[in-house]
Amino acid sequence: MAPDKKEVLLVALGGNALIQKGQEGTVEQQFENLAVPVGQIARLSRRYRIIITHGNGPQVGNLLLQQESCELVPRLPLEILVAQTQGQIGYMIESSLDSQLMELGILAKPLVSLISYVVVDENDPSFANPTKPIGPVYSEEEAARLPYPTLKTPKGFRRVVVSPRPVTIVEKREIRKLIEKDFIVICCGGGGIPVIREGRSFCGVDAVIDKDLASARLAEEVGVDIFLIATDVKGVALHYGTPQEVFLEKLSAAEARRHLEAGHFPAGSMGPKIEAAVQFAEARHRRSIICSIAEIAAAVDGRAGTQFG
Amino acid sequence: MAPDKKEVLLVALGGNALIQKGQEGTVEQQFENLAVPVGQIARLSRRYRIIITHGNGPQVGNLLLQQESCELVPRLPLEILVAQTQGQIGYMIESSLDSQLMELGILAKPLVSLISYVVVDENDPSFANPTKPIGPVYSEEEAARLPYPTLKTPKGFRRVVVSPRPVTIVEKREIRKLIEKDFIVICCGGGGIPVIREGRSFCGVDAVIDKDLASARLAEEVGVDIFLIATDVKGVALHYGTPQEVFLEKLSAAEARRHLEAGHFPAGSMGPKIEAAVQFAEARHRRSIICSIAEIAAAVDGRAGTQFG
Repeated sequence: MAPDKKEVLLVALGGNALIQKGQEGTVEQQFENLAVPVGQIARLSRRYRIIITHGNGPQVGNLLLQQESCELVPRLPLEILVAQTQGQIGYMIESSLDSQLMELGILAKPLVSLISYVVVDENDPSFANPTKPIGPVYSEEEAARLPYPTLKTPKGFRRVVVSPRPVTIVEKREIRKLIEKDFIVICCGGGGIPVIREGRSFCGVDAVIDKDLASARLAEEVGVDIFLIATDVKGVALHYGTPQEVFLEKLSAAEARRHLEAGHFPAGSMGPKIEAAVQFAEARHRRSIICSIAEIAAAVDGRAGTQFG
Repeated sequence: MAPDKKEVLLVALGGNALIQKGQEGTVEQQFENLAVPVGQIARLSRRYRIIITHGNGPQVGNLLLQQESCELVPRLPLEILVAQTQGQIGYMIESSLDSQLMELGILAKPLVSLISYVVVDENDPSFANPTKPIGPVYSEEEAARLPYPTLKTPKGFRRVVVSPRPVTIVEKREIRKLIEKDFIVICCGGGGIPVIREGRSFCGVDAVIDKDLASARLAEEVGVDIFLIATDVKGVALHYGTPQEVFLEKLSAAEARRHLEAGHFPAGSMGPKIEAAVQFAEARHRRSIICSIAEIAAAVDGRAGTQFG
């Protein structure tokens, strides 16, 4: 990197950037919620080159529900629904950011939202063992009638899908070129559209990729300097939710791995975030951060969140 | 333009590039249909810099139908559904084109699919008079219960929406930069996500923009050399569908305007395509073409379709 170039910051926005707990998730609510992270990112774009990725859990769940309520339209596989959420959320983030940049008088910065697909390994062990719950909650009787595997969760039965590990981001070369030209790039929404390589072509698969693991892969492949995961808690804690809770301001990759292996972090939530943060910090010898949506700017400056490295 | 630079070709793909008449429109059918135009575009990318735009009629109709069948999920305004179809169709075109480029050994060409939004005028006369039919056909009783305006069409009652004229493509500057760097760019899907400018921000509106008019606007704003509209007929004909039918291989902008004003072309189908072709040819003094999906390459070489200019 030329010495005069700004560092590259990747911000992975959690689902709560758009829909917060207990909200119905109207479009108005989603735009209002987005103003908090996007305002901070707009200001950070003066000092950093920016990549934004995002989750899609509630949105893809809604599309599934709608699809299942309607017999008149051919069902679409999950990878197409992920693509639809990239369009929806990509637009919402891009137009929010456009407005905030105009507000700040940052008028010359190019900004794009890209469709992204991500190669997974057809021999990934998760294909034999779908475990990721998505979409609505069913009763045992309803679940028995569904044409796909379900799993009993604390709330009830939910559809479970394959969640393979991301191997490579198809658009990495394009994203690298855009970042090089100081574009702000929104990409890899919902972990990316999962595809397998079949000879000389790509073929979509009925699966979803973890958004934080895909973001870490992208951060490595594009050569990011700071990898930040923004979520609904202020960072990593041991004994989370108990009287013994201890917040961790700093965490070495080795310690984090030890805590992960000791089962400190639940598989469905903080686990993959910490795994993603550690993977990036070890591969690039650079900083990763887990922080709350409200403290993105403070965490980049080292004043909030959990700092890995 | 530097003399060593390739000309820029914009191909606007009609809805039949994905779903053909009488088809249910499964994902397999859509990918199979796409191979025809996309194979030709992949080969043309050796000689031209390429922009691809596309329609979304059946896809946005399906999303509307699904949304109306499901009470559990908050309804999304039309502009969000357009954004969803940009994700879906953008992914389908991009991955098909990626496969075809690999097949041809064209490995170094960057390729992106962009979310695009398009500014419309809040005083556009169409806001007072929604006329564009979209989505499913209803009985008179069903139509009376719907929360939005409907219109009696030959098939039955259909929802009608506002269809304002495109004023400017928000991402035009980004698209220009990408084309300059020889990226293939897929954008302006479904005519673009319609927004109005409110002070320093953009605000989505419940409307759809004509895909061919938006593509013509983009072609002017980006400085395209050839503007090609690919559809389900081989070009422009007078007395279409009658024994007097005359196919037109060439058409000057002035003649085309005369025929348009004489009411030769129906408002819902060939009319806006001819208007778009004429608008571009007059503004840029360059060639526009209307041709069939199967004859894109021949039409670029002047051996098929109707050539304007």
